[in-house]
Formats: sequence, structure tokens, C-alpha cells
Amino acid sequence: MGKFKRNERIAGLMYIFTNRPNEILTYNYFSKLFNVKKPSISGDIGIMKELVKKLDIGVIETIPGANGGVRFIPGNNKEETKKFLDYLCSELSKKERLIPGGFIYMMDLLNNPQIVKKIGMILADEFIDRDIDYVVTIETKGIPIGLMTAEFLGVPLVIIRKNMRITEGTAVNINYISGSTKTIQTMSLSKRALKEGANVLIVDDFMRAGGTIKGIKEMMGEFNAQVKGIGVLITTLEPEEKLIKGYKALLKLEKVDEVDGEISMSSNFELLRQFK
Amino acid sequence: MGKFKRNERIAGLMYIFTNRPNEILTYNYFSKLFNVKKPSISGDIGIMKELVKKLDIGVIETIPGANGGVRFIPGNNKEETKKFLDYLCSELSKKERLIPGGFIYMMDLLNNPQIVKKIGMILADEFIDRDIDYVVTIETKGIPIGLMTAEFLGVPLVIIRKNMRITEGTAVNINYISGSTKTIQTMSLSKRALKEGANVLIVDDFMRAGGTIKGIKEMMGEFNAQVKGIGVLITTLEPEEKLIKGYKALLKLEKVDEVDGEISMSSNFELLRQFK
Repeated sequence: MGKFKRNERIAGLMYIFTNRPNEILTYNYFSKLFNVKKPSISGDIGIMKELVKKLDIGVIETIPGANGGVRFIPGNNKEETKKFLDYLCSELSKKERLIPGGFIYMMDLLNNPQIVKKIGMILADEFIDRDIDYVVTIETKGIPIGLMTAEFLGVPLVIIRKNMRITEGTAVNINYISGSTKTIQTMSLSKRALKEGANVLIVDDFMRAGGTIKGIKEMMGEFNAQVKGIGVLITTLEPEEKLIKGYKALLKLEKVDEVDGEISMSSNFELLRQFK
Repeated sequence: MGKFKRNERIAGLMYIFTNRPNEILTYNYFSKLFNVKKPSISGDIGIMKELVKKLDIGVIETIPGANGGVRFIPGNNKEETKKFLDYLCSELSKKERLIPGGFIYMMDLLNNPQIVKKIGMILADEFIDRDIDYVVTIETKGIPIGLMTAEFLGVPLVIIRKNMRITEGTAVNINYISGSTKTIQTMSLSKRALKEGANVLIVDDFMRAGGTIKGIKEMMGEFNAQVKGIGVLITTLEPEEKLIKGYKALLKLEKVDEVDGEISMSSNFELLRQFK
């Protein structure tokens, strides 16, 4: 690369930080990339720190020491997050989303990159202080949210399969009881999927009684992993007594009335740790 | 928001463009966001255009007319892409990835947000000129790549299920024959998933004979959708005769020798349209 002026470097840094959230990047890396000496990069980073604060998009943190560097921790804007969760509530409460059996069609939202990106950013910031090594989810609907949460935390995603797959080698299989349907199900995870003793965040799209997540917790036990957090997009009011504790849900499904075609959904915005 | 100086706006614009690739954003939107008049934004965009060119990260395009605005089309750096595909080849050829049955363990790569983001960006740029409305994939392993490709194209992802789900309402089900295993399988897609007459890009992680993708094409026919492109991460040398034509694969699996523990994988970098 040729020579870049300070303003050009600032824009370039913003591009890199935005693309690689929570990754520790060294002054050396930037120095080579922009072909300037380290003190110049140091000055750039100083300006960036002020800038991300002023733009209200997160913080840039300096990590001292031999493995040190800087990283960008994206943050959510309070007003925008509140509006976004309200938007999800009103969108998900639309009559036409009702599916026979009392289900709600939400694939258009759960597979929309911009929507799941925002959800991922909100979930990530709720658990940013837990030193997470992996985000763990179970196929299929929670995968996009899980992937985006993992991206913002700067860690890999792990997907538990609902059946054993020969293409993934030796696996741990466990049986669990789905709390709402009371049926026995199997989940499977390759032995290679997690490093021993990792810290994990469990993420899913929907939780009723919590049987699936209880199963995932048990699976994590088999890998000697520590469950440091549980984040779901939607939980239901009923049953009140869940099979797991300490989860965080962004939305609450209060009622589905199939006869009148009514769905009521509310936001848990006021429970978010990141705005306290 | 308060007042921002030009350099602060440039950095802010970079943040927004990077987060929302291929989305058309209006001068009005920026003008309100930064609390400045439109001619100032117009000047900012002019600077941005030069800047993204100089940084070699894509182009900013102006769309004239009533629904006009500007959008950032991220581009891949030629040298970096070549290196990245070579890295994937060497990583995927490692002996320890061999799984009994001749399979290759690749979940760590397919679920790594930074890796799938790069794959998604390469696939997106191959089909950027096809006016894509949806990226379509089939569960499970191709979902992360599909989501990232969709993000860079600025369109939603559609996930075909391998079994019918009552939670997704009325669905189209089709049977297809997996070209490599010769077994009959079912795929299912909710009737709500696609708008009539859409242009779609099919994305998957792995293709052997192409039976699954042939099935997806048939499914798209049921929705009167036009298949405008097919992009896969890996294809195999054998069988030479595939069930579909006109696909683009980033990598080619040439040989898996279970006895000697050898995997040979090569890059299709020289076939990429975006660098021609």
C-alpha cells in the first residue's frame, strides 16, 4: 500500500474495526498495513477513541502487555435499541404471522442479516464481560442470531446437531426432554467442537419451558465447559416455572389467541444490563 | 446528535457503509443523522468515493432518481483473496481433519464468523451483477456462509428445511435424490419464504454430484423464482459429470486417501470473475 494521510488512516481504521469487532489488533499490524511508524498509529488510535465515543458506537480499548493491542467493542445506542425491540414486538404481533397450532411465522426476521445483526449486537453486549470463548446454539433457527452474536464477541460459533452426523466424526450424544412437547429428543456434538474447559454463551431464538437449553447445559457439562450466560430472543410467559434459571430474553411472548388471531409480545428492554 | 466535523462524518459514514453493505442510503438520511445540510453530505460522499478506491475495499455507487441514494459495494483485494483461498486449502488438507468414511472435519472453519465473512464476501462479489433478491441455502452447514453472502448482497437469506416444520405453516415439499448416496430425501420450504418471480442465488458449503442443488433448483421452480447463480465453497473432482451446470466453486477437493491419510484440495482462484 502507498502512503496514507491521517484522515485516510482514520477511515481505514474504522473499516477494519467495524469488520473485526472485539479482535485484538496490534500497533505493529496497523503500522505495516498503512506503512507508517508506530507513533503515528498511536496518534490515530487516540483520535479514534474520542471519535467512537462521540459517534456513540462503542469503545476502543487498549490492552497492555506482550500480547496487547487495541480492540473495538461495538456498543448499542440506548434509544435505537429500545426502538428496535419495539419494532420487533409490533412486527411479530401481526395477525398474519399466526400459523395453525398457535405458532408465529418469523423466518423472514430470523434470516434477515440486518435484523439478526442488531439482535446479535444486543445479545453480545449483555455478556461482553463474561470472557466468552464460544457461542453455542442448536440447529436450525437460532443459527443466524448465534453467528452474529459470535461475530460481535469475536469468538467462534458451535452448532449442536439434532441428529448424529457421520461427517463430523466421534460425537457426544445426549437425550433430553423437550419441556413443552414432553417428547424425548437427541442432540449431538462432535468431540472436536470445543476446547476443554471453555467459557460458553448459549444462544437460541425461542424458549418455552427451557428443556432444550437444559439439554445444551448438560451437553456443555460433558465438555467440561462453563456456561457463562444464556441469551434468547423470545421467551414465553407460560409456563412461568422454567427448567433453567439466569437466562436473558430480549422479548416476551405473552399470549397467542388463535381464535381471535391475537398475538401479544412485549419488550424486555428495561432488563438489559448494558444500559444500566 | 450534535455537530460533526467533516473528518468525523467521514469516519461515521465508513462505519455505516461497512455495517450496511449494498443498501441504498439517501442523502436525506445522512443529512438528518449528522445534522448538516445536503451539500455537505454530497461533499463527504465525494471524498468517500476516492477513499474506498484508495483503500481498495470496494466502490461507492450513486443511484440517481427518486429512489436514489448511495451504496457501498465491498470489494475483495486480489492478493488477499488468493492468499485466503490458499490458506483454506492448506487448512482443509490437514491430515487430522480426516474422519472415518473419507469425510473432512470443517465445522471449526464453517462456523468461524471471520472466515465465513470472507467466504461470503467472495461469493457475493461473484454474483453482484445478477440483481439477486434472495440467497437460498439448505440446512445446516451452509447457513453461516449463506447468511454472510446475503449480508454482503444486502438481501435476505432463505433456509430450506430437510423436513417439514409445523412452525412454518403451509409448505412446498419436494423429494430429491442425493447424487452421491443415491437415497431419496425430502426438502421443505414455507410458502411465505419467497416473493413470486424473485431472482435467487443458491449457496452451499459442499457439492459432490449436485443432487441437492438440483433439488433446490426444482424447489425454486415451484416458487417461479429465477436461479441467477449457484455458488459453493467446495466441489469434488469426482464425479466429473455433475447433475447441474453453471455453478461456481471456490475450492476443489481432488482426492481423499483414507489409507495414507492424505487430502488434496486446490483453489479455483483463477476462475473468479471479480478479478478479471
